[in-house]
Amino acid sequence: PSSESSSQVKPGADSKQEGYENLLVTSEDRITKILLNRPTKKNAITTQMYHEIMLALKAASQDDSVLTVLTGSGDYYCSGNDLTNFTDIPPGGVEEKAKNSSFLLRDFVNCFIDFPKPLVAVVNGPAVGISVTILGLFDIVYASDRATFHTPFSHLGQSPEGCSSYTFPKIMGSSKAAEMLIFGKKLTAGEACAQGLVTQVFPDSTFQKEVWTRLKAYSKLPPNAMRISKEIIRKNEKEKLHAVNAEECNVLLSRWQSDECMNAVVNFLSRKAKL
Amino acid sequence: PSSESSSQVKPGADSKQEGYENLLVTSEDRITKILLNRPTKKNAITTQMYHEIMLALKAASQDDSVLTVLTGSGDYYCSGNDLTNFTDIPPGGVEEKAKNSSFLLRDFVNCFIDFPKPLVAVVNGPAVGISVTILGLFDIVYASDRATFHTPFSHLGQSPEGCSSYTFPKIMGSSKAAEMLIFGKKLTAGEACAQGLVTQVFPDSTFQKEVWTRLKAYSKLPPNAMRISKEIIRKNEKEKLHAVNAEECNVLLSRWQSDECMNAVVNFLSRKAKL
Amino acid sequence: PSSESSSQVKPGADSKQEGYENLLVTSEDRITKILLNRPTKKNAITTQMYHEIMLALKAASQDDSVLTVLTGSGDYYCSGNDLTNFTDIPPGGVEEKAKNSSFLLRDFVNCFIDFPKPLVAVVNGPAVGISVTILGLFDIVYASDRATFHTPFSHLGQSPEGCSSYTFPKIMGSSKAAEMLIFGKKLTAGEACAQGLVTQVFPDSTFQKEVWTRLKAYSKLPPNAMRISKEIIRKNEKEKLHAVNAEECNVLLSRWQSDECMNAVVNFLSRKAKL
Repeated sequence: PSSESSSQVKPGADSKQEGYENLLVTSEDRITKILLNRPTKKNAITTQMYHEIMLALKAASQDDSVLTVLTGSGDYYCSGNDLTNFTDIPPGGVEEKAKNSSFLLRDFVNCFIDFPKPLVAVVNGPAVGISVTILGLFDIVYASDRATFHTPFSHLGQSPEGCSSYTFPKIMGSSKAAEMLIFGKKLTAGEACAQGLVTQVFPDSTFQKEVWTRLKAYSKLPPNAMRISKEIIRKNEKEKLHAVNAEECNVLLSRWQSDECMNAVVNFLSRKAKL
Repeated sequence: PSSESSSQVKPGADSKQEGYENLLVTSEDRITKILLNRPTKKNAITTQMYHEIMLALKAASQDDSVLTVLTGSGDYYCSGNDLTNFTDIPPGGVEEKAKNSSFLLRDFVNCFIDFPKPLVAVVNGPAVGISVTILGLFDIVYASDRATFHTPFSHLGQSPEGCSSYTFPKIMGSSKAAEMLIFGKKLTAGEACAQGLVTQVFPDSTFQKEVWTRLKAYSKLPPNAMRISKEIIRKNEKEKLHAVNAEECNVLLSRWQSDECMNAVVNFLSRKAKL
Repeated sequence: PSSESSSQVKPGADSKQEGYENLLVTSEDRITKILLNRPTKKNAITTQMYHEIMLALKAASQDDSVLTVLTGSGDYYCSGNDLTNFTDIPPGGVEEKAKNSSFLLRDFVNCFIDFPKPLVAVVNGPAVGISVTILGLFDIVYASDRATFHTPFSHLGQSPEGCSSYTFPKIMGSSKAAEMLIFGKKLTAGEACAQGLVTQVFPDSTFQKEVWTRLKAYSKLPPNAMRISKEIIRKNEKEKLHAVNAEECNVLLSRWQSDECMNAVVNFLSRKAKL
């Protein structure tokens, strides 16, 4: 049995030891797999999950694996930020909430900028928002042909994060990036691959098998060479990425307190509640 | 009737008020449309038109529209710099002419670098020279499948402008950019789209309908979010773009005074006169 | 007869005057062609050939040609660094060897960064290692459909050079670049073209004819305009490229002295010896 199926058959030991509520983290064949495991909510990321993902990345950076994989459980890869995060207002009110969210986002994205080992996204289905924008910080992005890529920031009165304001124009050129980031155009897996956001697309029926076969082969390469090759590539823009992340989070801090954003989110949540 | 057809049926009021000679500027559905309106000359840009376009962009940046569109009247999008501009030599001679042209070009391109709202090119037909190079400064570039993209700088003894020496390698990679910018390779709409210069290509028969339907939908999104999203994307390279523009104009200042350039332009104009 | 065939029929005079052992350098139709001429070794680059290529580039930068072409003799374009270079250990041992190699590589790549005229790669067959990574420094890359592009650095315990850690992510986006540079994915000519590394692919049967016809046409364009257009494009990142080159060579200096690299190279050479 493949590590993939084995980790789905007996998922428990590692992850329960680590105490993750919404992740399953397994390590096999020199690959650490971080599985977003909230399938009934399309793997939407709650405040707690942001913290859990950061912990899992920190652990993966220090374990003896050579590759780290992020993937989703169920039909979705990840539906992005759980918008109910916005409704949990602390005593300090909307301003405090916005500050906390901005700090959390910055720390979260920094973990991806600074992650020292090759990082692979196995995009098993639709991806939305923050789960899309941070793809520009991965080394490899494999996608099922069922995957889609959607960043509806303007629709929600918000603005780009995950360094996408810098990485997307670099990856796909300004005129493709803007249609996604400013106007919320949703890309198919094929489009995302043609535009360089995705490394390769696989038929959904053979996606898991093909991807894990390839990753296991890669995991046998000399580990220091891979880590150092990633480091030298990332070094060229690490400082810029940190500056972009800080600026994006700063802009969102004020966006989240704007009427435009609050109205858009309330409308979204009430439409959803009516479904 | 669509805003597109209505603005073509009764084009006059706004533009005459504004006093544009070779532009038609209309505003409808939160979209300001700047139409290059010199179809008998394939919308070649005269010295006066450079000034008119700058004025129209300044007005659009301050009106209550949320999107600004540049497009062409007739078969061409724009045939580029009107080379008869070169023949209108002031009392100060070629040097003064070159200086004036260099300043004008720098100001013109700066308007596109600094334009604060999402900016869309609706490329209805062939595009040449400066009308191609500034596309790297637009947020969206929609093209008819009749459009072509041609920058014959070397043929005319000149060198790249519109920040294309920076934006084109970034958008399409160095080896595709150089074939356009150094060797004057003409791209089809499909090639320009595959290389990221164009966002999407539409069949000419449905071009206007499909494009304006999409733009009207985009114009209904929260305007501040769109403006701020553009701002954060542009901010990453605004300083670099201004430096590149200044350098390109500086190089052209000396190119325009070179024998190589003067001979190439004279040959071009005399060949054209014989047709 | 074309310059191509004529330079193959009577290759000698120039190159023998220049004293190249493994290059044939010819100049015709305002094009200087540097032919890697070690076909029995798939044009693998020995220490001496690095020096010869640098000399040939220096000569080409000063002759009266307007285009410079690098291409390969026989079935291969170039199989990369000749790994027997590693086995020629000087009295100072592995450390001195690594230092010499690192300095040589830096000087070699600097020649491509600083080359002042339009530079064209005519990739007639498979390309490996350093011959692939420096393609990001060329202005045009034409490839036969027999060509492949392979950078197996990790397999050999090494890391990217030729500025590829910077140019490849810029050209093809981070997630395509990393699969090549970190995991050694081999690209077909079509893939390399879709990802922007290659300007255009031609059928092998007509490759030489089509490419040289096009290059001869380009060589007739105004030479100063072409040189200055290249200069203004390169100027935008020349400083960055030199810094990246220095850093890459510095990292390789320590990689080459690592057990991981030495074991990988020894294994490679002994596997090859058994064939």
